[in-house]
Amino acid sequence: MHLLKELCSIQAPSGNEEPLKDFLLDYIRKNAASWSHQPTVYTSDDLQDCIVLAFGNPRTAVFAHMDSIGFTVAYNNHLHPIGSPYAKDGYRLVGKDSNGDVDGVLKIEEEEWILDAGRIIDRGTELTFKPNFREEGDFILTPYLDDRLGVWTALKLAETLENGIIAFTCWEEHGGGSVAYLARWIYETFHVKQSLICDITWVTAGVEAGKGVAISMRDRMIPRKKYVNKIIELTRQSGIPFQLEVEGAGASDGRELQLSAYPWDWCFIGAPEKDAHTPDECVHKQDIESMLALYKYLMEKL
Amino acid sequence: MHLLKELCSIQAPSGNEEPLKDFLLDYIRKNAASWSHQPTVYTSDDLQDCIVLAFGNPRTAVFAHMDSIGFTVAYNNHLHPIGSPYAKDGYRLVGKDSNGDVDGVLKIEEEEWILDAGRIIDRGTELTFKPNFREEGDFILTPYLDDRLGVWTALKLAETLENGIIAFTCWEEHGGGSVAYLARWIYETFHVKQSLICDITWVTAGVEAGKGVAISMRDRMIPRKKYVNKIIELTRQSGIPFQLEVEGAGASDGRELQLSAYPWDWCFIGAPEKDAHTPDECVHKQDIESMLALYKYLMEKL
Amino acid sequence: MHLLKELCSIQAPSGNEEPLKDFLLDYIRKNAASWSHQPTVYTSDDLQDCIVLAFGNPRTAVFAHMDSIGFTVAYNNHLHPIGSPYAKDGYRLVGKDSNGDVDGVLKIEEEEWILDAGRIIDRGTELTFKPNFREEGDFILTPYLDDRLGVWTALKLAETLENGIIAFTCWEEHGGGSVAYLARWIYETFHVKQSLICDITWVTAGVEAGKGVAISMRDRMIPRKKYVNKIIELTRQSGIPFQLEVEGAGASDGRELQLSAYPWDWCFIGAPEKDAHTPDECVHKQDIESMLALYKYLMEKL
Repeated sequence: MHLLKELCSIQAPSGNEEPLKDFLLDYIRKNAASWSHQPTVYTSDDLQDCIVLAFGNPRTAVFAHMDSIGFTVAYNNHLHPIGSPYAKDGYRLVGKDSNGDVDGVLKIEEEEWILDAGRIIDRGTELTFKPNFREEGDFILTPYLDDRLGVWTALKLAETLENGIIAFTCWEEHGGGSVAYLARWIYETFHVKQSLICDITWVTAGVEAGKGVAISMRDRMIPRKKYVNKIIELTRQSGIPFQLEVEGAGASDGRELQLSAYPWDWCFIGAPEKDAHTPDECVHKQDIESMLALYKYLMEKL
Repeated sequence: MHLLKELCSIQAPSGNEEPLKDFLLDYIRKNAASWSHQPTVYTSDDLQDCIVLAFGNPRTAVFAHMDSIGFTVAYNNHLHPIGSPYAKDGYRLVGKDSNGDVDGVLKIEEEEWILDAGRIIDRGTELTFKPNFREEGDFILTPYLDDRLGVWTALKLAETLENGIIAFTCWEEHGGGSVAYLARWIYETFHVKQSLICDITWVTAGVEAGKGVAISMRDRMIPRKKYVNKIIELTRQSGIPFQLEVEGAGASDGRELQLSAYPWDWCFIGAPEKDAHTPDECVHKQDIESMLALYKYLMEKL
Repeated sequence: MHLLKELCSIQAPSGNEEPLKDFLLDYIRKNAASWSHQPTVYTSDDLQDCIVLAFGNPRTAVFAHMDSIGFTVAYNNHLHPIGSPYAKDGYRLVGKDSNGDVDGVLKIEEEEWILDAGRIIDRGTELTFKPNFREEGDFILTPYLDDRLGVWTALKLAETLENGIIAFTCWEEHGGGSVAYLARWIYETFHVKQSLICDITWVTAGVEAGKGVAISMRDRMIPRKKYVNKIIELTRQSGIPFQLEVEGAGASDGRELQLSAYPWDWCFIGAPEKDAHTPDECVHKQDIESMLALYKYLMEKL
């Protein structure tokens, strides 16, 4: 879990994914030689800070988002949300501005969020939860499992992937902004239009920790039934533990695929977590295992 | 009205339009020979479950959505909305899961929607209002006039259409997802960018049943004035009864055209109904007549 | 300020930008000969009512929206908003319908907006605030500085621009509808993907009148940090007075670029105003000066 810990310690909220992109490009450079199959690595200003890996003759694309939720410093240390962070008095927030490292504490005063840091922080500075990776029994706890665990899963998948695309995306937590052009570019370049959304979901009344990876039949958006049914049918044959999720809220990179000008099918598949968007995001290790196993299986069968 | 009754009995909520698509392809196969002009029928996985009919040298495209509102079964028979159904204690809902037909009753408990069906229904099962087609005097009452009446109008229009496109679309009731790619594909293939949104609107303070088809000057979205004015001007010359609608809420497939990456003009034209999104959607027969007459007229003149 | 006054007197709410388009085409025809460099003027039905000016070898595009907020007359003089106008009892609203000029007064009754005009106005008629241009000391007050001041800035920029694109856009105040296709067309035609959003922002706790043009680091949307930082760095070197803005709400044409299927970078740069979306929008003259100066500077350096 060393790689996951490293991924969870990198500050890269929506709009500033560059540090994670640089880490990933470096990781790929160092590790790809040991992978079963060599991908073509696409990175250019026409993909902004996204990275696309193309293996063999791809039929399906995996989308994992690099960005995390966070906070932007406005005036006099007042904060605006990046995405939808859960805010609680006392949370430790870190960042960097022209005066050096920032390490402060979130205060909530009359519903306003303010950083207590002993000095005025530069406008526009981004803050994220202070890294705090823990293994506790069957569980991993850390800020930003959403979606560094998706990124981790995609990197592990890359080790043996023969045919397929892996796309590392931006802005997922804050309304989107990269998947629309990736949807166009991947469709036009590879004529691929099947996708899996490699992201983290919630423990709820219907989805428990430790019971297997969740296949989402819908969230706020509704994917094409035929495609989701095909995935469920394949998964049943695999023997991999899984749970069916049916929610009325929440969205993912699948939303941008759904609304794009290209006929993408999408299905969200990911481990469930407790305490989403807090510093204590918590996932059961067995759900991580079944998530990775299912991605390996589906990328072969779909 | 046998065809309309049949259309209103097919279960095809947003995301699972395949049953209606299959019915339409079968209907077209059986009936197109008797039409005045033979269309090219486009149906392929690049259009997902949409169907496009192209007649002659098209200048204008008609969009009619196949999907309906409905409900998705979540955990322990709790329900999430597909689109925005009106929910009332006692509504009959039907569907099908791995154990066979589902026929239950909607219960509302503490603002939660629950299906009372005597057994636990499979997660992800879709439910729709139980078919109940009625002719009562001047009116037709049935679930899903929205938008099976639009589909019916498009099929009737097809009987004599010489030049034009008819597109049967998906996901209209649930945030869209097909018109964005149809907008691209039709524009690129035919360079058509004029459209009519063949859908059902509401009886309101300003639009009455029996007074003629409604031409919407705006809803939540605002179409280009010049295009709407041209349509109103043509309609005045036609002698067909019509009403001008001006709303601040509601949206249609026109919304996706408005926001698409192609310069589409759009105008919503449809019969007004009472009790929208209930099992008792109700339209005046004369408004159906003027709706069809206006589509025939405009597709020639525009 | 004669040109600005003229621009602020033209009625062109979202969806009916044609009058302003016609004015601009006429202005460009009459004035372009005196500009340092001659642009290619793009105007065609494939751009609807937008205008694009292309100078030299463009690297960056400036977007200024032509439309304003306003009101649509519904039934019995009830009004629906176009965009988000501020409404107050007694505001003078003007327009034109089949019976001639409309000049009425806004009344608010039980949260409904109604036009008091002595007669029933045609459905669909658009109303805007009555023109009322004032210079008061250091300030300009008038309805529709948002965004006629952006349009004015773009026209002044055109006088000396050597390389760059200026796009006059539609529907910005009402959810968008033109920037999505401009984003595609400009990217495909010129491979330009850098942009500046030439629009008006708000005086707030952090941004004061008279302290210089505002560079927005974020609003409801979050642009790519790397691009915004580059602009701030260049601006620091310029010596032009400016202020950094950080907001959690509000959006602009930048939103459509962010969500488009092309990898656009965008940054909002504009003078701050008091009393936005009222008949008394108010901007400090020095902020207009620094806004124009910064556009000239950045279009050279970026």
